[in-house]
Formats: sequence, structure tokens, C-alpha cells
Amino acid sequence: MNKNPARGMRDFLPMDKELREYVKNTIREVYKLSGFTEIETPAVENIENLLGSNGGENLKLIYKILKRGEKLKLDSDSLKESDLSDLGLRYDLTIPLCRYYSNNKANLPNVFKALQIGNVYRAERSQKGRYRTFVQCDVDVIGSSDITTEIDLINTVTKALYSLELKDFVVRINDRRVLKGVISYAGFTDEEFSKVCIILDKMDKIGVGGVKKSLMDENYKLDSVEKLMNVLSDVSQEGMERLKEYGVEKDAVNSLTTIIDTINTISNGMYNIEFDFTLVRGMGYYTGTIFEISLQNLGYSVAGGGRYDNLIESFTGESVPACGFSIGFERIVDLLKENDFKPKTNTKIALVYDDRSSVKRVMSIAEEFRSNGSSVSILEKAKKFGKQLNRFENEGYSKVLILNDDELEVKEL
Amino acid sequence: MNKNPARGMRDFLPMDKELREYVKNTIREVYKLSGFTEIETPAVENIENLLGSNGGENLKLIYKILKRGEKLKLDSDSLKESDLSDLGLRYDLTIPLCRYYSNNKANLPNVFKALQIGNVYRAERSQKGRYRTFVQCDVDVIGSSDITTEIDLINTVTKALYSLELKDFVVRINDRRVLKGVISYAGFTDEEFSKVCIILDKMDKIGVGGVKKSLMDENYKLDSVEKLMNVLSDVSQEGMERLKEYGVEKDAVNSLTTIIDTINTISNGMYNIEFDFTLVRGMGYYTGTIFEISLQNLGYSVAGGGRYDNLIESFTGESVPACGFSIGFERIVDLLKENDFKPKTNTKIALVYDDRSSVKRVMSIAEEFRSNGSSVSILEKAKKFGKQLNRFENEGYSKVLILNDDELEVKEL
Repeated sequence: MNKNPARGMRDFLPMDKELREYVKNTIREVYKLSGFTEIETPAVENIENLLGSNGGENLKLIYKILKRGEKLKLDSDSLKESDLSDLGLRYDLTIPLCRYYSNNKANLPNVFKALQIGNVYRAERSQKGRYRTFVQCDVDVIGSSDITTEIDLINTVTKALYSLELKDFVVRINDRRVLKGVISYAGFTDEEFSKVCIILDKMDKIGVGGVKKSLMDENYKLDSVEKLMNVLSDVSQEGMERLKEYGVEKDAVNSLTTIIDTINTISNGMYNIEFDFTLVRGMGYYTGTIFEISLQNLGYSVAGGGRYDNLIESFTGESVPACGFSIGFERIVDLLKENDFKPKTNTKIALVYDDRSSVKRVMSIAEEFRSNGSSVSILEKAKKFGKQLNRFENEGYSKVLILNDDELEVKEL
Repeated sequence: MNKNPARGMRDFLPMDKELREYVKNTIREVYKLSGFTEIETPAVENIENLLGSNGGENLKLIYKILKRGEKLKLDSDSLKESDLSDLGLRYDLTIPLCRYYSNNKANLPNVFKALQIGNVYRAERSQKGRYRTFVQCDVDVIGSSDITTEIDLINTVTKALYSLELKDFVVRINDRRVLKGVISYAGFTDEEFSKVCIILDKMDKIGVGGVKKSLMDENYKLDSVEKLMNVLSDVSQEGMERLKEYGVEKDAVNSLTTIIDTINTISNGMYNIEFDFTLVRGMGYYTGTIFEISLQNLGYSVAGGGRYDNLIESFTGESVPACGFSIGFERIVDLLKENDFKPKTNTKIALVYDDRSSVKRVMSIAEEFRSNGSSVSILEKAKKFGKQLNRFENEGYSKVLILNDDELEVKEL
């Protein structure tokens, strides 16, 4: 038997699991106060839903499950991989959510606020700090196109971060309609749109000069590149209102303005929200507002999301507006661990007994302390008691109850 | 796209998910007070550990995961199923626990009290009420052969049931060493042992007569069958002490007696514990005490477990005593649902606003009520407001806050 977990998967020690559960519960409680209700979808999905989804590179990373029994036919002459599998492990929670919504619509509120926490699976190339299963933690509002949704989502997710004692973060916001408008105004074609977005997205790493150079390297029309860079410079100096002059629909600018204004009021100076024309977000399915939260001094975001008004249509056939926000659970756990964050827990007591003590006495003392809310672990007294005491200290016990011949002695650690 | 979950898997609606999480958390909290610490193992395991395990029929129900990339070779002449897969989904939590223990032993206490809650997967034939993924909820003590372990496990699991308002249950207890001793005393061979156990296990369904007939049908020696039935009858009339006369080692009888006595004292008349010679438990790996909890008037058990002192050896190479108890999570959830059990939750408030109200006012009122611990869901006021109010009542809201042109009206439901 092989004692290692499967490649890229992890065993969690009690201390780590405690932190993970604490983070999940803290996020869950904040989300629930904002009216989100928790749902669960299975980690195993029909393979056609996964392969037919808009998941880009993720589709190459799907764990596929072998057909079972008679369905698995190995005697064909030209066996293809696609003949072998009927199920797969989900690579995100958004596809399952959309399927869930279309399957259960009749039993859900017509504006449905969903909270989903669960493992997703991606057969990534193994490397340090990259795991093949990780927890995603999503909130989504389905059925509302009102921008109060965006505001409520941003407000809710930032509160969750605060309740995990994460501060000094900034919310960056943009709108896919802004990108569409300006990039098309500059003269790029629809086919060029995605590639231009990918380059713009690198602004924080390569700067204005780098972006311009990368665009030139792609042999785009010089005129388009310069127009785009001018808009960028003008908007960053003169403000968002200028976007209306560069082919961006008024609705997009107005909704960004309202969201930013409102968040600035309710955030009460605790954090900032900034318009960022170079915010793109990877997934192809976003249609409107997009947002991301980064912690200052960290090179990565801890949460991101946006509006995806067309995604559910692929299941239901009818257009349903939707907007979601996902917290990077693993990053947050790693960060808290680095900061040596300790979740609040029950007092840990060890109860040890020698062989002259009666089991009944042991049990009744344990119950007495448990009823006061302490966690009491019953253990045989070791022959080398000094060593055992040292172990208890290392394992985080704060008190030891010692029963010698039914006599109780209490020792604080 | 297919809107159904994969066959035999389930989507959980918010109300159901709420109950499931409540049950998990209640069990978790009781277990933690008894000194158990939570761990997590991945749902995906190396296939050799699953296929090499002592899982009987379960091995036929494993979901196997297709090899990826170059490892998957489809051009061989004599392709076998075993060439195609390197990973599988776990079918229980005990095999992963044993692997986990052997992998992480250096970082675990030398008596390790583990709590594990997670999904397991079995490709069962589809039928009503049988699911292909379900939650298991296990507590295990690894590293102690003391019977205080058994007592502590029984005490802990019964407390968990009580805290879920499940009463009127009975704990049945036996010891594999009792079965071994008596069945061998009666003259059955070691090869016949398992089959005799399987028949004994049916006592509650087919009665003494049925068991005798089934044994005769197997063409066992008449003398052995009669000896066994006599022991059964004698022990049920004269008590467990008689077992010592029928080839059962004293240790087994004494430990059963101490466990039953102690539980009778600490249970305080709240529930009974009974010796049951016909309790067998399916898994082949049990070596000592075995126990089960059934609710009165129900034809199935809600929890079961026992001592398995040899299982971990298959990973570590050295014998490590272990004892575990597993709660039938899905059965308990179904039962609570049938009893219309309602978990305690936050007050649910709907906050609706018309288009003359400002988003800032909406958000500040929501925050005010959230800070009092209520769950506040922000929603646009529908044109058909009466219908919307009806929906709120059905969805469990107890209060509606209505903002008309920034004026607040409060409506109790």
C-alpha cells in the first residue's frame, strides 16, 4: 500500500484543518447575513457539461471518470479517449451552479442568492504551491440585472475579508462594455479583442511602455495602438466621465460611477475602490462589471468576479442575468498561516488516569469539564509521565487532569 | 448542455443544505468536546490503495479516473481496464484514514483521536433512496488498546445523537473474539466462520428458527449447528459470564462486561446497551469489540463501528491498535427531515426598494439590521408587490423592510 496522497493532493493535519474550517465558517456566516443561502452540487458532473463549457485551458485539466460495466467497451479497433469516459470532476463551481439553477429553478426564489463552498479539481502540472484540488468559495446572484447586486456583492466579500482580519486591500473595478467600447473605438477588430485584453491585463507587471511595445509586436495598426494609449492616458488624467467620448455606452459609465460612489460611502474609508481600465479577468463569459480585490504589497488578487448575463442561457435556453464573486480560499488560508493567525478554539484539556482509577470516575470527570465547554481528551497515563506532559504542551493542551487511584489532581500547563 | 446532476448524485436545495450543515456541525461540536480533532483527506486516492483494500463488494463499485496525457496508451493490442486508470474516488473514510495515519504519524499525537467528515463514492445500481455519493462521519482512536476508548466512543456518539434530538435508541455490542470462540467451540472450521457469521447476523429478521434452518441448509454438521444454538440459548438466559465456558477468552468477556457496566452508569437511564451475540458487522477487518446503534421502531442502524487492530499494519508494517465509530449521516438527515426538524437559524429579513430610493440608503439600512445578527437580503421591489410578499412568506422571511422613495416601512410576516 502507498502511504502518500495522490499526486498534487493534500492531507490536512488537525491544526491546518482547524484553520481551514474556521475560514470557511467565517466567510459562510458573513455571506448568510447578506441573505445568501448555501447550496451543494456534486463534485462529479456529466462529462458533456464540462467539455462543452466555456472553460478555456481548464478543459485540458479535467479528471475524467472511466465508464463502468458494459458501457466500457475496450475491443473497438479505433478506441478514442472520448469513448472511455462519461463523467468528470468539476473544475470550478460556476458551471455546476448554472446547471443547478436550470435544474431547480421551479424551487428557487426568482432572485436567487447562492453561496457555494466546495472542492474543485484540475490536473495541473505538479509544482510547489500548486494543487490539483482546492476549495472555491463563491457567492452569486441570479436573476437581477440591478447594480445594487454588484454593490451588495462587493460589500459582502469585503466584510468577509475584514472578519478574517485582512485589511489594507483595494477593490479594482472595470466593465467589459468599457473594454469593448474603447478597443473597438481605437480601431481593433472583434477578432483582435481578446488578445488586446490579454496584453492590457499585464499593465501592472510591464507598465504603459511594456503594453505599447507588446501591442506593436503583434503588428496591430500603429494608429489603433496610439489611439488606445491616448484614451488610456486621457481617462487616467481626466476621469471616467471621458469614457463616454470614446465609444463606451453611457449605461456602463453610469453604473461604474454609481458603484464606486456608493462603495466609497459605505466603506467608510476602510478600503478603496478604484476604476482600472486594464482590469480584464480571464474567463470569457463576463458581460458587464468585473472586479477584483488585491491586498496591498501582494502580487496577486484574493477575490474576483463579475457579471455573466449569458452563461445560464446555455442550459435554460433563456437569458438570465447573473453576477458572482469568488474568494481565493487557498490563498487566504496560506496568508493567514504565514501571519500565524490562530482561530479561536475551545480550551483543550487532557485527562489522564492510572490503572488503579475506575473507568466510571474517569468518565464522570470528563463529562463535568466537557459540560463547561472544554474539549476533554481521555488518555492513559504514560509510564514516562514527564515526557507525556511535554507532549501535551506541544499539542496545545492548557490543562491536565490527573487521576491517581481515583484522586484528582489538576495541573495548569 | 444537460441540466441533470450525474446519475445517482444530488443537488441540494438551500433548505436541505441548511439541515445537512446543521447536522454536520452539531456532530462536529460534540466530537470536538470529546477531544477529537478534525482531519481531511482527499476524495481522490491512488487506485492501488483502493483496489488492494479489504473492502469486499465495495471494490466493484469504485469510480476509476482515467490516466492523463502520455500515461494513457490506447494503442496496445490487449488493452485491459487496469491499464487505463491510476486514481479512484474513495469508497469509505477508513482506508484514507489508515493511509493518512501512516503518512503523517510523525506529526500526530501518539494516541490520535481523529474526526473525519466527507463524501464517499460508490457506483451502486441506481434505485430510490440509494445514492452514488454520500457523507460519512467518522471518529477513530488510533494507538490505544484500552477499553476506555470503546466507552468514550460510545459515550461521544450517543451524545451526538442526543444533541440532534434523537432519543429512544439502543446500543448493541459484541466482540469478534466472542464470535470466533463460540463458533470454533461449536466445531465449525475457520473457513466456515464468515458464512456462519452472515447467517447469525440475520437473527433480527428471521429469528432463532430461521437461523437454525439457514445453517442446516448449508449442510454444516448437525452437531455443530445444535451446539451453537444451545450456546445462544444458554447465554441469552444465563448471561454473558457463561461465554467463558464456551471457548471465549476471558479478556473478551471481561471487557464487554466493563463496557456495558460503565455505559449503564454514565447513560443515566437515557438509553440501553445490550450484549447481542448475533451482532456481526459486515467489514472483515474488525478484531475485537463491535457495536451498533439502532433507533427503536426502525429497521436499520444509525451508527456502527468497532475495533480494527490490524488494518493500519498494511500501510505501516507495524501493528497499531485502532477503534472507530461511524454515524450514518444520510439516514439521520432523512430521519430529521421526516420528523420536520427545523435547525435554528438567523431571522430572515427581505429589504425591498423602489427606483426612487437611493442605493446608499438601501445599503445603510441593510447594514443596520445585519449588525443585529439578522440575515438581510436586498431585493428590487417587484411591480406585483402582493405576489412578492407571498413569495417572501413561502421562502421563510419573517420581516420585510420596504423603502419607498427612501422612506422606510417595516412589515412583519
